[in-house]
This record gives sequence, structure tokens and C-alpha cells, in this order.
Amino acid sequence: MPNISARSQAAPASPIRRLYPLAVEAKRKGKRVYHLNIGQPDIPTPEAFLRGIREAKVEVLDYAPSPGRPEAIHAVQAYYAELGFHLTPQEILITIGGSEAITFALMVTCDPGDRVLIPEPFYPNYLGYARLANVEITPLTTFRSEGFHLPPRREIERHLTPNTKAILLSNPANPTGVVYTEAELDMLVALALQYDLFLIVDEVYREFVYDGKHKSILSYPEIAGQAIVVDSISKRLSACGARIGMLISRNKEVMAAAQKCATIRLSAPTFEQLGFAAFMADPNHRDIIARMIEEYRVRRDTFCEELAKIPGVTFRKPEGAFYVMFGLPVQDSEDFIRWMLTDFPGPETVMFAPGAGFYATPGKGQDEVRGAYVLNTEDLRRACAILAEGLTLYTAALARARG
Amino acid sequence: MPNISARSQAAPASPIRRLYPLAVEAKRKGKRVYHLNIGQPDIPTPEAFLRGIREAKVEVLDYAPSPGRPEAIHAVQAYYAELGFHLTPQEILITIGGSEAITFALMVTCDPGDRVLIPEPFYPNYLGYARLANVEITPLTTFRSEGFHLPPRREIERHLTPNTKAILLSNPANPTGVVYTEAELDMLVALALQYDLFLIVDEVYREFVYDGKHKSILSYPEIAGQAIVVDSISKRLSACGARIGMLISRNKEVMAAAQKCATIRLSAPTFEQLGFAAFMADPNHRDIIARMIEEYRVRRDTFCEELAKIPGVTFRKPEGAFYVMFGLPVQDSEDFIRWMLTDFPGPETVMFAPGAGFYATPGKGQDEVRGAYVLNTEDLRRACAILAEGLTLYTAALARARG
Repeated sequence: MPNISARSQAAPASPIRRLYPLAVEAKRKGKRVYHLNIGQPDIPTPEAFLRGIREAKVEVLDYAPSPGRPEAIHAVQAYYAELGFHLTPQEILITIGGSEAITFALMVTCDPGDRVLIPEPFYPNYLGYARLANVEITPLTTFRSEGFHLPPRREIERHLTPNTKAILLSNPANPTGVVYTEAELDMLVALALQYDLFLIVDEVYREFVYDGKHKSILSYPEIAGQAIVVDSISKRLSACGARIGMLISRNKEVMAAAQKCATIRLSAPTFEQLGFAAFMADPNHRDIIARMIEEYRVRRDTFCEELAKIPGVTFRKPEGAFYVMFGLPVQDSEDFIRWMLTDFPGPETVMFAPGAGFYATPGKGQDEVRGAYVLNTEDLRRACAILAEGLTLYTAALARARG
Repeated sequence: MPNISARSQAAPASPIRRLYPLAVEAKRKGKRVYHLNIGQPDIPTPEAFLRGIREAKVEVLDYAPSPGRPEAIHAVQAYYAELGFHLTPQEILITIGGSEAITFALMVTCDPGDRVLIPEPFYPNYLGYARLANVEITPLTTFRSEGFHLPPRREIERHLTPNTKAILLSNPANPTGVVYTEAELDMLVALALQYDLFLIVDEVYREFVYDGKHKSILSYPEIAGQAIVVDSISKRLSACGARIGMLISRNKEVMAAAQKCATIRLSAPTFEQLGFAAFMADPNHRDIIARMIEEYRVRRDTFCEELAKIPGVTFRKPEGAFYVMFGLPVQDSEDFIRWMLTDFPGPETVMFAPGAGFYATPGKGQDEVRGAYVLNTEDLRRACAILAEGLTLYTAALARARG
């Protein structure tokens, strides 16, 4: 039988997948599992979006135009205009989720063997897209003790190679919740200009900022020709299953190449594009987003407050997104999470994402986990109480096992 | 400014895109354009599918499971069971259209620099997927005079190289309408076994067979470990905009690698998966498909009958899909199509896809066009009358221009 490709073997499966069967098994046994492991919001999808889908006038469900339905492109223009950015339709491509936007950005900027610099810990799917596209990742380690902010410019420069074509980062970031400061962005822009790099910024969590202010890479006219924004409605419309994202750039060559990628895959799904357009046509759409962000702010504060009470848990309160990457007083956080799913006594348990899965550098993040505060505050408090109890029992069990 | 990648420059834009602005301009001037250039059916999408979307119970539109919603996987199982193939859920992956299934198949079977053998003329997006994945295509030329059936085994063997990892073909084929005979499939299977090649068969037009019988590659147990089926609901549910396809294989390694690709891009759109499940739950779904196929049979017969009347038009009546690849008495069919959009007099005109765009071998197909019989029979007759008149006028205009 022929062998499958090396690239598909190299592409990492989401590390959390190893643990999922254990969660399923725990639930089969009647256990309640608080899922803080996945960035899947629990907030209901706005009614205007769902109504847009239900009431879409479709007789023949034909291919949407490859760059996106005009209604959806117009909705993106309207959304960005509210943020102060005036985009032409040619600067927008509707993609199949933020996922496809990242894939297109890598395909357009990199040939096989080229490198992308990414601050770690980072969203593990970045590594998957890169492996399938045969793009190499240079991880730039950031640290919990510094709230995962960027290292000094000199340190970043040290990581550049002649094959480095782009810097990719998410801002606000998954999994760390960091929101980069204006000074950090200024530095990245100067660096990208000096070294002639593309700057790919995943801004899907743009609205989820609780301290300070988010600055979009679109605010920098001087980098317009090198900046590519990856965006998605998944998080801010609580519509992860819609698969509607967008790629934005003011570089005409980039857009022409991305449009070619889009032509090849034909189109993004029609109904969800219409749902997005209907959401933007709802005069209350800004309030709906604002209420949701306020809910997440309360969750962040609650979650951080409760985490801070747990002995041995270490973190700096993150400024955005809906994640906290925190340290645990254990040597192997994946083993702890496994134990919580299989051995923790009682009717409830909690699941986090193991930290190591967010690092490309081997050995990093072993004592960390990512918690997604996508549950209501009561559940978050309960999850933290379970975590605290779990840490005590796990440590004791480990000590017993070691005799 | 940094350069975009070589691969995105190499990826061909659909050749028809050069002509589209002319069609738009013709319509702006009030001209009616009969679009026989695109495989977009005009048949209404089945009501059961649309109702399934309208009535979907969704409160939080969360990520669907990466391999597909259980309802959709079950619908695929039910559909294949009707064809006599009993698939486990693990042998099925729901993809974002047949497009994504082809991309995954190439990613899983080929590394950069590897080769795929494809009979030409072929669906031009195959070349796009391959270029972006840095997979090389070896075209295997087939001929109009032979109804685009395969050349002898010896000729195919001559095209294999040590880097050839797979044979990719569509059956029934786009753009030729050929349905491969059992003898041809037997030969391909024997060849794939002997040379240890994957056999990727795009069977999206499986139901569109008017003469003889379609044989799925799934009918060959001996090639089960090397066969990958690409499929989609786009054509048989007249739901191109749904972006619901599927990848099927009985090779566990292939499926594990494809599932990894699926995990990285998260999920296929939810509503359309539910629409497909609702369609399959309609007890009349087989009748709906059968009625549509009967309509296409009449269209094929009408279109071929009318084409046969036009002096200088050459083709062999195709057995399936909804395309005819035919020869025109012109030297440059793209120039003729352009002339029909810009210079043909009167209130109506017709558009086809230029033949050269379906060949990877330079210079091939210059006198050919692909006609998609996706219009009702009255419109097809009218389109053929316009074509006949156009050929006469174009030839005369050309003669005049040459003095």
C-alpha cells in the first residue's frame, strides 16, 4: 500500500484530542464536566443572525461569488467603518472561517521552506496550517511572568532568518489573552518595514478587550502594503459554526493572490453570509456585542479572582480574549487534566487545555494550562473550587504513589 | 515591499474569469446572455433541504465536530447504503464542498514535488489545488475523437514517474461528460495496484449517467486501501452554495490524516449539514434525484441533437455529467467566445467555457469549448441557434479582417 504524505503525518492533531475520549467517558458515567478547555462561547447566537438564515430567500442555492456575497462584503465594510476603517470591497475577502483566512495568508506569503515567526504560546492550529502548507514556524518564546508580552526588539531580530517571510500573531491573543501595547505594535511595524516582512495579525478577538484599548494593525498606514488582517465572526457573534471569516489587506497583489485561492475553492457558505449581513442590518448590533463583552469582562474578573485564591496557581491577569494561561503547581499538566477526568472523585470535574500544546518549543508549557472563561460566573466559581480540590488530591495521590 | 509567494502566482485563476467582465458588460447593455459556461444547475434546490435549514434548532451556533455533524455522517451512510455501499462513520469525512475533499486528498497523498496523473481535459480547479499544495500534475491527454475515453494501459504507464503518487480523475467527468467503462476502471485498478498508487476518484456527478451504468471505485474491494472517493451534494441536490462535500476511504491511515486536516480547519458549516440530513430524511429524496436526472437526460439529448446540426461542430455524445466538450470550426475558441460577448449583433448571445482552460498541455483544446447544459430545453435550442449564427458571422468577420 502506498504511504501517506510526510506533511500529513507532520501536521499535529489538536493535542486536546487525546483527552477528549476521557471526557466523553466521564460524562457517560454521569459526571458533569466543566469545559474550560475550548474557545467555544456559550452565549446564544444573536437572533438577527439566525433570523437572517431562516428568512433567506433562496430558490437555487448556487455558488456565492468567490470573494463573498455582496451583502456580506458590505457588512464587513459597515463593521470596519464603525471601527474607523474605510475599506473598499477589493480589500476584503470573505473566507470560510478565520481558519481559511490564515491558510490563505500563509499560502500567499510563503513558499515551501519559508518561515513564519510566531510568538509562543500560540493557537495550535497555526502549526497545522503551516505544516500542511510546508511552511516552517520559528517560535518566539514569551513568558507567563511577563504576561506573555513581547521580548525586546533585539531578541526578535535574533530569530529572523533569510527565509523568514512573515510575522504571525493574534491580538488579543489566544491562548494568553495578551493585548499588545501600542509600543509593542510600533516596534513590530518598524521591524516588519526594516526587514521587509509581511505582518499577519489575527484580530478575531478584537472586541474582547477589557483593559486599555486594542489597536488594529490597520491603524498603521506605513505598513499598509505588508499588513494582512485575519478576522472572523465566530467569537463576536458567538457563531463559531457559521464558518464566516475574512482576510483584509490593502496590498493589491496580496488580495489578487488571495482571490485566486478563493476562486479555486469556489465559495464560502451562502446562508451564513446572509446571516452575518442580517446581523449587521440590526440597528442594535453594537449593543449586542457590547453586552456580550461586558459579560466576558465580569467572567474574566471572576475567574482571575478565583484562580488567584488557589495555592500555587500563577498568572498575570490578561487584558483580552477569553483565555487565561496559568501555571499549576504540578510537573505535568496533561497528566493532571487526565487525572481530573479519570480519578477525581465526586459528581463533577473540570477540563482545561494542556499548556504544552500551545508551544512549538519542546518542553515548554508543561506546568501550564489554558482556561477559557466561556461559562457563566457561577460555573466559573464552581470550576475553580473543583480545580483547587483537584490539585490537593492529585498532589497527595502522587505523593502516595511515589511512596 | 515583500514579494508574494511563487505558488500563489503559479496557481491559475479560472480562465473563464478573463471573459466574465465582458459578459457583465454585455448584460449591462441590455443583452441576454445564455450561460452555458458554468456548471451551476438552474434546478431549484429541494424543498426538504431548504426546510431543514429554516427549521434547524440552533441556539448557540457552535463548532460542528470536525469530521462532520452526526446527522450529516448518518445521511452519507444512508445515501451510500442505497447505492449498495455500507460505510462506517470512520470511513466518512464531511468536507467543505468537494473542493476541500480534493485538497485533503492531495495533501494526504502527496508531498511537495510529488506528482499526480490526471487525464486531460480536466476540471481546471484541480490544477489550482495542486499548485497551492506544490503538487505537480502529469496530464494524460485524451481525445475528442475517442469520446475522451482513456488511452491504452501502455500509454498511461509511459506517463508514470518515481514521484507519481496518485491518479486523480472525475467519473463521470467534468468537462467531457465521459463515463469510464468497467474495462477502463478494471485497468486503472490493476495499474494502481501494480504501481502502488492512490486512486482518487471524484464521483460528484455519479448520479448523472444517461448511457450504461456508473461504477464507483468503491465497488473494487481489492483497491480499498488505495481508493479515495471525493463526493459532494452540490450537483445532485442543486446546492452548490451549500459547500457540503465528503471524502471517503477505507484506508484507516488516509482517514486519520484527512481527519487531522479537518481538525485544523475546525468544521464544515452547520446549517447546510442539517439541510442535507433533512433531505435524506425525506422519503421522496430518491424520486427527487431521479426526476432531476431525467430532466438532464432530455437536455443532453436536445443539446447534442442541436449541436449536431451546426456545420463544423464536432463531438461524441457524452454518457454523463452535464457537459459536452465539442470542437468548433475556429482556430481560437476563446477569441470566438469574446467576439460573441462583444460583437455578436442582436439582443441575445451565448457564453461557453474555452477549451484550452481544461488542458495542462500548452496548445491543446484551442478549437474546443465546454458547454454545460444547465438550462431548460427551449433555452438550449435557442443557445444553439445563436451559436450557429455566431459561427457564420464570426467566420465572415474574420475573413473580412484578413482582407
